[in-house]
Amino acid sequence: MTARHDPSIKGFASDNYAGVHPEILQAIAEANGGHQISYGDDVYTEALSEVFRRHFGETAQAWPVFNGTAANVVSLRSMLAPWEAVVCAETAHINVDEGGAPEVVGGIKLHPVPTPDGKLTPELIDRQAWGFGDVHRAQPRVVSISNTTELGTVYTPDEIAAICSHAHEHGMLVHLDGSRLTNAAAALDVPMRALTTDAGVDVLSFGGTKIGMLYGEAVVVLDPGAAHGVDYLRKTFMQLSSKMRFVSAQFLALLSGDLWLRNARQANAMGRRLAEAVRDLPGVEMPRPVEANAVFAILPRDVTERLQKRFRFYTWNQATGEVRWMCAFDTTEADVDAFAAALAEELGAS
Amino acid sequence: MTARHDPSIKGFASDNYAGVHPEILQAIAEANGGHQISYGDDVYTEALSEVFRRHFGETAQAWPVFNGTAANVVSLRSMLAPWEAVVCAETAHINVDEGGAPEVVGGIKLHPVPTPDGKLTPELIDRQAWGFGDVHRAQPRVVSISNTTELGTVYTPDEIAAICSHAHEHGMLVHLDGSRLTNAAAALDVPMRALTTDAGVDVLSFGGTKIGMLYGEAVVVLDPGAAHGVDYLRKTFMQLSSKMRFVSAQFLALLSGDLWLRNARQANAMGRRLAEAVRDLPGVEMPRPVEANAVFAILPRDVTERLQKRFRFYTWNQATGEVRWMCAFDTTEADVDAFAAALAEELGAS
Amino acid sequence: MTARHDPSIKGFASDNYAGVHPEILQAIAEANGGHQISYGDDVYTEALSEVFRRHFGETAQAWPVFNGTAANVVSLRSMLAPWEAVVCAETAHINVDEGGAPEVVGGIKLHPVPTPDGKLTPELIDRQAWGFGDVHRAQPRVVSISNTTELGTVYTPDEIAAICSHAHEHGMLVHLDGSRLTNAAAALDVPMRALTTDAGVDVLSFGGTKIGMLYGEAVVVLDPGAAHGVDYLRKTFMQLSSKMRFVSAQFLALLSGDLWLRNARQANAMGRRLAEAVRDLPGVEMPRPVEANAVFAILPRDVTERLQKRFRFYTWNQATGEVRWMCAFDTTEADVDAFAAALAEELGAS
Amino acid sequence: MTARHDPSIKGFASDNYAGVHPEILQAIAEANGGHQISYGDDVYTEALSEVFRRHFGETAQAWPVFNGTAANVVSLRSMLAPWEAVVCAETAHINVDEGGAPEVVGGIKLHPVPTPDGKLTPELIDRQAWGFGDVHRAQPRVVSISNTTELGTVYTPDEIAAICSHAHEHGMLVHLDGSRLTNAAAALDVPMRALTTDAGVDVLSFGGTKIGMLYGEAVVVLDPGAAHGVDYLRKTFMQLSSKMRFVSAQFLALLSGDLWLRNARQANAMGRRLAEAVRDLPGVEMPRPVEANAVFAILPRDVTERLQKRFRFYTWNQATGEVRWMCAFDTTEADVDAFAAALAEELGAS
Repeated sequence: MTARHDPSIKGFASDNYAGVHPEILQAIAEANGGHQISYGDDVYTEALSEVFRRHFGETAQAWPVFNGTAANVVSLRSMLAPWEAVVCAETAHINVDEGGAPEVVGGIKLHPVPTPDGKLTPELIDRQAWGFGDVHRAQPRVVSISNTTELGTVYTPDEIAAICSHAHEHGMLVHLDGSRLTNAAAALDVPMRALTTDAGVDVLSFGGTKIGMLYGEAVVVLDPGAAHGVDYLRKTFMQLSSKMRFVSAQFLALLSGDLWLRNARQANAMGRRLAEAVRDLPGVEMPRPVEANAVFAILPRDVTERLQKRFRFYTWNQATGEVRWMCAFDTTEADVDAFAAALAEELGAS
Repeated sequence: MTARHDPSIKGFASDNYAGVHPEILQAIAEANGGHQISYGDDVYTEALSEVFRRHFGETAQAWPVFNGTAANVVSLRSMLAPWEAVVCAETAHINVDEGGAPEVVGGIKLHPVPTPDGKLTPELIDRQAWGFGDVHRAQPRVVSISNTTELGTVYTPDEIAAICSHAHEHGMLVHLDGSRLTNAAAALDVPMRALTTDAGVDVLSFGGTKIGMLYGEAVVVLDPGAAHGVDYLRKTFMQLSSKMRFVSAQFLALLSGDLWLRNARQANAMGRRLAEAVRDLPGVEMPRPVEANAVFAILPRDVTERLQKRFRFYTWNQATGEVRWMCAFDTTEADVDAFAAALAEELGAS
Repeated sequence: MTARHDPSIKGFASDNYAGVHPEILQAIAEANGGHQISYGDDVYTEALSEVFRRHFGETAQAWPVFNGTAANVVSLRSMLAPWEAVVCAETAHINVDEGGAPEVVGGIKLHPVPTPDGKLTPELIDRQAWGFGDVHRAQPRVVSISNTTELGTVYTPDEIAAICSHAHEHGMLVHLDGSRLTNAAAALDVPMRALTTDAGVDVLSFGGTKIGMLYGEAVVVLDPGAAHGVDYLRKTFMQLSSKMRFVSAQFLALLSGDLWLRNARQANAMGRRLAEAVRDLPGVEMPRPVEANAVFAILPRDVTERLQKRFRFYTWNQATGEVRWMCAFDTTEADVDAFAAALAEELGAS
Repeated sequence: MTARHDPSIKGFASDNYAGVHPEILQAIAEANGGHQISYGDDVYTEALSEVFRRHFGETAQAWPVFNGTAANVVSLRSMLAPWEAVVCAETAHINVDEGGAPEVVGGIKLHPVPTPDGKLTPELIDRQAWGFGDVHRAQPRVVSISNTTELGTVYTPDEIAAICSHAHEHGMLVHLDGSRLTNAAAALDVPMRALTTDAGVDVLSFGGTKIGMLYGEAVVVLDPGAAHGVDYLRKTFMQLSSKMRFVSAQFLALLSGDLWLRNARQANAMGRRLAEAVRDLPGVEMPRPVEANAVFAILPRDVTERLQKRFRFYTWNQATGEVRWMCAFDTTEADVDAFAAALAEELGAS
């Protein structure tokens, strides 16, 4: 077989349009050959424990799973009794983008809250955190936040700490959807534990796919008292990889050194570069801050249409004409510049 | 990072202890680079359709998923209304080895039937296929069989055709757990469609992992009228890979040429070689036919204990002392001979 | 045993604080004695079919269940594939008051919409009715409305017809939570079918408990093509009463003659009487129209506190001081007048 | 409305073909009138606590639900984590007669065991109680037994104690489906607590419907540490009756005095009388002991056919010609004698 696609073509649709970082691919190859115990009792998975503890503290324990939806559902299921529910932003991935997996597969009710920027606050949480002890109300038990958020914004350690304090005071736990946690940490130039363990987060969905892995996310329990039965739930929820050595080898490659940080910094830098390059173009409105690797813009519809024939990206809001541009670990300065030039061109032709 | 394990060590525990076939790894590397649309709209996944049709007939449609448990649950869920149930062998993987995923995640009731050899027959199916129209009984709607079975036996095309006729006559559908379908086809030297489409099977879980892939199975709908909503169910059941090009590229490498068959023949040949080598050793009893790559034997307990210190394999039945030896695509003649010699040695020391 | 409570005491907390209408109790007694086939094959349940058809049209078919939560969950489950979802008002009973039953037990995702008055409109529906064909979005398939609403408002036939047209044009179905449908019909002085079958509603949860029955609601399928497997779902969802003759006998008593209408008119009239009696009291604000048997008012907190010691009723919104007063079929003019007098007294003492 | 059926006609199909005992109906009438707090905060439900404690010990706590399927599902769900499973007899009601409710609605896997007489033993339990700690196996956590069993047999206190000891030694809990616990206690002439609390049972489904109530069963937690969240689960699982005072009033009538015992003794005595009357008729084979109110017999098929035109009863096993006759609290000596005479007649005509 030979390659069926042109590897020189890149777009701005999503960081999961990118492929696999070469160091990750190399790690898979090195883990190959011979036999290793399946289902996680291999030497690669064993080594992974220490690496996650180094990033997230001594009590952290990680369970690799296949994808982000599953990391979220298994995390939440491990934190909740059947009658307990999750407070989240209305824009949260778990609420809008997982095909109903939390409800249908997890049997989990969400209590969504509208937010201006994808970020919850103690005040916003309180709009749904009530009715404790009332059997008619699915009991608010977990607050779930995403960092970076689905709107490209980034929670600071202080903001997360305030949420965690508030949640804990009300007997609730905090889950963080860290599908792009690496981008958030790189954006703020803090270690990942500043945004998680040290801020009081209880359970984390850690994302590997968007930052250069072939596949693989992890349920990371930071407070051992906050989650139950993850070993079993991962299997029952169809997320136990038989040849797990290869998931773990990828995580080792990502997290043992600074590959995660290099990749996240590159993606973020390209986001900033793109924002700078287009911000002042006439006809471009930028309705949201660019804090990591996502750039949102409002364009004339005809411009969007023509530009999408040249580069892939998504329309975020059909009604307002807002589009989303996402930079990946493999986005280069040349990619950004070519895209910005094309946008300028199409705007000029408008 | 360097390899953390000795690739020269192999055992007989499971075909998923093996790694990735080099041609598969090569295919992943070739599919890398540049951007491809995520979630299955890439050129590799597009090419896959034709390949599956070539093996399974013009109406076949395939949806790659992450693992075998998921292939089974998504397949079954797509065939069943909420009040319908599955007749299966008591020993079926879905009944004993998936952590309750069909029931807990799929909400699916199983009607298990004891069998002598892991194989259902029309008569055995009838032990559970009754109560049609009675609201008190979860309605039998799907018959699920495994080929090869969990006991290493192989259904012939005629046996499967008889089951499908019987099921269809009673308004039921047939699902085949083909986690090791390649081994079954190789064992009988028939094309895979002889054991599936041509025999009347409606939906297939096709297994890639155990026959040399890194990860990846597929829900393959053979009769388009038999399954509903697989597109949606795959997402909702947390099995939609974002970087799907890499799952599809693996399947292309496995199925475009004869890699699947080479691998299956090798594993089966090693199963036969092993059986021949140990069958007549005093102290070894072989309670089941060796029809593909699984070999079952009853050994003195002390022999098992000592042998397991030298090679990995599983005790199948603690009560009877039965053990299972599974050969993989990468098992060599030398591996088998060394293992047989070790067994002879330990028996001699008994 | 003798009565343990004082039957002269009534309050304004809920219409389910009331007991059983004497004609209903009489019907239960008459259905007693001898043996009747259990699980719905009795003569009372048989007779019920014709009565429901008389109210809801020739294609209507009814399945009695135990309570309203179940009527809603069974109705919705019968209308939805596993990947499909429900658009409803944020204040809908299914969203806020059923302990997560739709999600946890039904595996159903809700897409809630904020409304000013508990009523959806085509425009409000469109805030969630999008993403058709996108596997990442739980597919909007059913619009669920309540009449009367949880805020005491009443949809007119035209309003419902507009919703149904809109939904059907988008390939969606309409479910009506008719826990208080009798009150709505009485309020508008229209037959119940004007608010359901004739307006285009597909499936109805019909409420008996709040309007004078001991227990019992019904899933009523108005468009036979809109629901599947209700026979089976009712059993699987634990709602098949063994001694069903008694549920059916109650419905016969309620619906064969005009008991439902007498009861609903009484409750509504008492709602109006109460509203009139208190509307002009200084210190009372009435933030919502009184259209049926529910009366909402904003009171000084100390007044509420003292009044709740004399009569039971609920605080609706702790933040605003809004309270809810609900009249039942057994609320009398004397009850209303005594309550209004007590309120005036407490306001005077304020 | 007038009665639509002839109350003089009785059969032997099921004890739920019977109606309501007059003392129960009287209790409902007495609890009527005025307002009572809904959803269980009424004075009748309050009084119920003490009554259940009197029968089942100081730590017993009861939650009324609508029917037996729900009592079982809510009981089991309260005892199990999502990855835990239930060992039960293959013939258990939860396995064969609840439309898949445990699996579909509860998400609970059952591990069924074939038994000769519907009764589990420590040895039979061990056929499924294994694999502890293995994530691939739904973890055996609860043993569920029925008393009387679905085959009419009765566990003694010693037999139950042996099961409970065995279960507890293996870290498992015991649930008892007491849909006919009253019949079992009456048959052995022991208090109900001898068969439950004193024998070590952890959670009980207590049946009221078959022994004379209109509707109503109860989840009774005997060991407070064995169940979690029943308050919430009852609501979420759609079993919280709004007018609960009437369920509780029925239980008070049944359990405050000896109504339960009178009814159970009558049903059992009629079972014995029937068995004696037909045992020696030529052509009748009685394959099972008659220990309570169920009588099983094997008849010539033509006799069954003719007899079923005169009296209602069920064929238990089409293959063997076995039929089941069930006596109810309202079965009289005259009913039994008329039935036995009819049987003799039909046998003579054979």
